Amino acid sequence: MQKVTIEYCKLCRWMMRAAWMGQELLTTFNEELDELSLKKGTGGVFDIYVNNQLIFSRKKAGRFPEITELKQLVRDQIAPDKSLGHSDKNR
Amino acid sequence: MQKVTIEYCKLCRWMMRAAWMGQELLTTFNEELDELSLKKGTGGVFDIYVNNQLIFSRKKAGRFPEITELKQLVRDQIAPDKSLGHSDKNR
Repeated sequence: MQKVTIEYCKLCRWMMRAAWMGQELLTTFNEELDELSLKKGTGGVFDIYVNNQLIFSRKKAGRFPEITELKQLVRDQIAPDKSLGHSDKNR
Repeated sequence: MQKVTIEYCKLCRWMMRAAWMGQELLTTFNEELDELSLKKGTGGVFDIYVNNQLIFSRKKAGRFPEITELKQLVRDQIAPDKSLGHSDKNR
């Protein structure tokens, strides 16, 4: 069971951003990803976990992830052999 | 920790419907709902759980839930005293 969790600050109104990114992941990893969870947080959190392991933190990075970057980070964890197409050149 | 899970058939392409309903719940229950999970299934499943208890099953009902109905079902579990406004007349 492969699961991605996006914890977002509800006070910052980042729900739609989190939901958009989550839907991108569900679509791209149609075969590989089993569950996408949106979790409410506070204090400016925007953290992304794969199977409860943190793979991106807005606070640590000082910015939001790019969607292509996020897909690569998730791919590296759950489907390392999968190509992400033309946006995946730097691999 | 209050959690809603929507399990949807990925073969039926019900992801966007599930994501829409999930976002409606996150918004309506901004204070009460902590986590919304979208879970992939097959075989025409569209089941909704509150804290792992099934509250609506498309197969059992023979139809999808109305969004107002779904909010009432979730409300009854996680925020029984909450009014859902003008769509909540039958309460």
